[in-house]
Amino acid sequence: MSISTKHNVTVEKVSKSRIDEIDFDNLVFGTTFSDHMFECDYKDGSWQNPTIRPYGPLTISPAAKVFHYGQAVFEGMKAFKDDNGNAFLFRPKDNFKRINISAKRMAIPEFPEEIFFEAMHRLMELDKAWIRPGFGNSLYIRPFAIATQAGVSAAPSDQYKFMILLSPAQAYYTGDVRVVFAEKFSRSANGGVGYAKAAGNYGAQFYPTNLAREKGFQQIIWTDANTHEYLEEAGTMNIFFRVNDTLITAPTGDRILDGITRKSVLKIAEHMGITCDVRPVSVKEIVAAVKDGSLKEIFGSGTAAIISPISAFGYQEEVYELPKSNTRYSDRFKQALMEIQYNKGEDPFDWRYPVG
Amino acid sequence: MSISTKHNVTVEKVSKSRIDEIDFDNLVFGTTFSDHMFECDYKDGSWQNPTIRPYGPLTISPAAKVFHYGQAVFEGMKAFKDDNGNAFLFRPKDNFKRINISAKRMAIPEFPEEIFFEAMHRLMELDKAWIRPGFGNSLYIRPFAIATQAGVSAAPSDQYKFMILLSPAQAYYTGDVRVVFAEKFSRSANGGVGYAKAAGNYGAQFYPTNLAREKGFQQIIWTDANTHEYLEEAGTMNIFFRVNDTLITAPTGDRILDGITRKSVLKIAEHMGITCDVRPVSVKEIVAAVKDGSLKEIFGSGTAAIISPISAFGYQEEVYELPKSNTRYSDRFKQALMEIQYNKGEDPFDWRYPVG
Ligand SMILES: Cc1ncc(COP(=O)(O)O)c(C=O)c1O
Ligand SMILES: Cc1ncc(COP(=O)(O)O)c(C=O)c1O
Repeated sequence: MSISTKHNVTVEKVSKSRIDEIDFDNLVFGTTFSDHMFECDYKDGSWQNPTIRPYGPLTISPAAKVFHYGQAVFEGMKAFKDDNGNAFLFRPKDNFKRINISAKRMAIPEFPEEIFFEAMHRLMELDKAWIRPGFGNSLYIRPFAIATQAGVSAAPSDQYKFMILLSPAQAYYTGDVRVVFAEKFSRSANGGVGYAKAAGNYGAQFYPTNLAREKGFQQIIWTDANTHEYLEEAGTMNIFFRVNDTLITAPTGDRILDGITRKSVLKIAEHMGITCDVRPVSVKEIVAAVKDGSLKEIFGSGTAAIISPISAFGYQEEVYELPKSNTRYSDRFKQALMEIQYNKGEDPFDWRYPVG
Repeated sequence: MSISTKHNVTVEKVSKSRIDEIDFDNLVFGTTFSDHMFECDYKDGSWQNPTIRPYGPLTISPAAKVFHYGQAVFEGMKAFKDDNGNAFLFRPKDNFKRINISAKRMAIPEFPEEIFFEAMHRLMELDKAWIRPGFGNSLYIRPFAIATQAGVSAAPSDQYKFMILLSPAQAYYTGDVRVVFAEKFSRSANGGVGYAKAAGNYGAQFYPTNLAREKGFQQIIWTDANTHEYLEEAGTMNIFFRVNDTLITAPTGDRILDGITRKSVLKIAEHMGITCDVRPVSVKEIVAAVKDGSLKEIFGSGTAAIISPISAFGYQEEVYELPKSNTRYSDRFKQALMEIQYNKGEDPFDWRYPVG
């Protein structure tokens, strides 16, 4: 085990990599972790002791506020490798900005940009072998922050831990996805935390999603909590509708996460000359469009799945199948995104971020 | 250290109590913990190895789902001691039922009643000295459950930990409380998790509460997320309004926690012959009532504070002071509740639960 410090981050390397034990062809998303992780503590008003050390368990008080009050935020991003062994992140500055937007809403002190990127570079350097080349392969990166002060009173913590975990990944979803439109449960409200990647937003979706699964749907498309008349987003994806040749997606705001893949799809669509309509999307119009045949596609966008074509949706006890096609926008967007991510083509929007 | 097993719960006692180090006259709520804690793990489909052991840190994966997805629920209850050294819980069956209602909503497996009460009895037996007699003194009890499976994919955990911590407490709030009515932020929505004691509900309130504090208010009274026209509850208290001699409080439902103190106040009020009106309470009527002098009191009810009289509220940049009085309902309810809790009088509703 060797210990070194470069710039700010103290590094404690593993004595022996675990990489040879990993079956990279049979990964279950989010369950395998690389050799190293990053850790930084907030106390006495500042982020302290940024450290990379071997992936392993934490020692934490059972009274830590994260357990009791869900004061926690996270991000999800990916590293990709091209065929020459060069590694890239995809728009990491947007993830960095977003974790601090989330942190603010959850009363967590903002994390410093310099340490974030230094940690990222050092981690990629150390665990580069965990990024496999080839479309679909990636290293999923999970920065997160948790409240660590011991105290069972409902007030903000004065101590936090910021961490980054790395998890090698293959494609996230297998096959097409069937979704159901939410008619009773809801995910977020105006004035709430829906726009933040706050931990509690996700746990709150598990039960309704279990119910949806029992009916044969893998995901829920959330609607506005108030009327359930407008389609918002899925659990970990923004949602696009293609009606004839127009691409429609809901505007982000209090209730909808400002997805980086979503922004990227809109940019690529514009570049391709596809008409985009960012506006509230009503359940009524989508049901009408599927009936008259003008609804060509629905797909989700998100870091984990990149682009997830949806094959059918359920609403009011009906199931509506979407037309099959081999000229789908979703395939074009996925291809375009992957070409950028895997360094197979131009990077017209400056989204690739080399990390060695 | 001695280890014994009675019924189901394995007990590992501290070798030496820490109680002599505690300054019981200067407790900060929720920061001091008794000698022992309870712990029980869920895996392979059942709750296993119920254990009481010395209070101390956990070892847990940084990928545990509780950190990433806020899959966690809790309860808050109290033990009281009378002048003869007898200890009592207050309506613990209601807390037990409620943690399983919360658990269901958060896709956490229900905890068995028998183990819960056995753990409670054993803990009280072991740490009885931590319950101090005298009005205001209590042992705050914090049962909670967290998702422990290591995995950064947004799906329910298949492993959990259920714990109970004990924290000696004096009175929760000092002085009267100034509140502000929510006009922009919101706490919960129909179809959401507001009715559950889900961890994320609390962390989500910290930032708006910080903003309220900067304006001189200690708490927020949440309004409906949709119109902000109806008054719902505070962060950890249900809210009552006394208009002339009628007691008004909002009905519980999707968005409002079914508070045990609230139910108890309604029961006591009925018993005292006070008219209660459980119905939506509009901001408009309360502002009108404070202006015409018919609003006599606002107070909060909750396990931590028991009854918390509110001295003023802010709304649309105005601050409305409430009349002072020495014939407040809030004082009568607090007295009545404490007489039951501390075994100073009859227990007409069978709320006291002896624990030795
Ligand atoms: C609620 C929610 N919506 C959308 C997304 C997609 O965002 P992004 O494209 O930045 O991954 C995510 C996942 O990150 C999410 O958690
Ligand atoms: C949101 C919320 N409302 C109300 C209450 C009061 O409930 P109880 O009287 O059962 O403590 C609590 C605290 O327990 C709470 O967390």
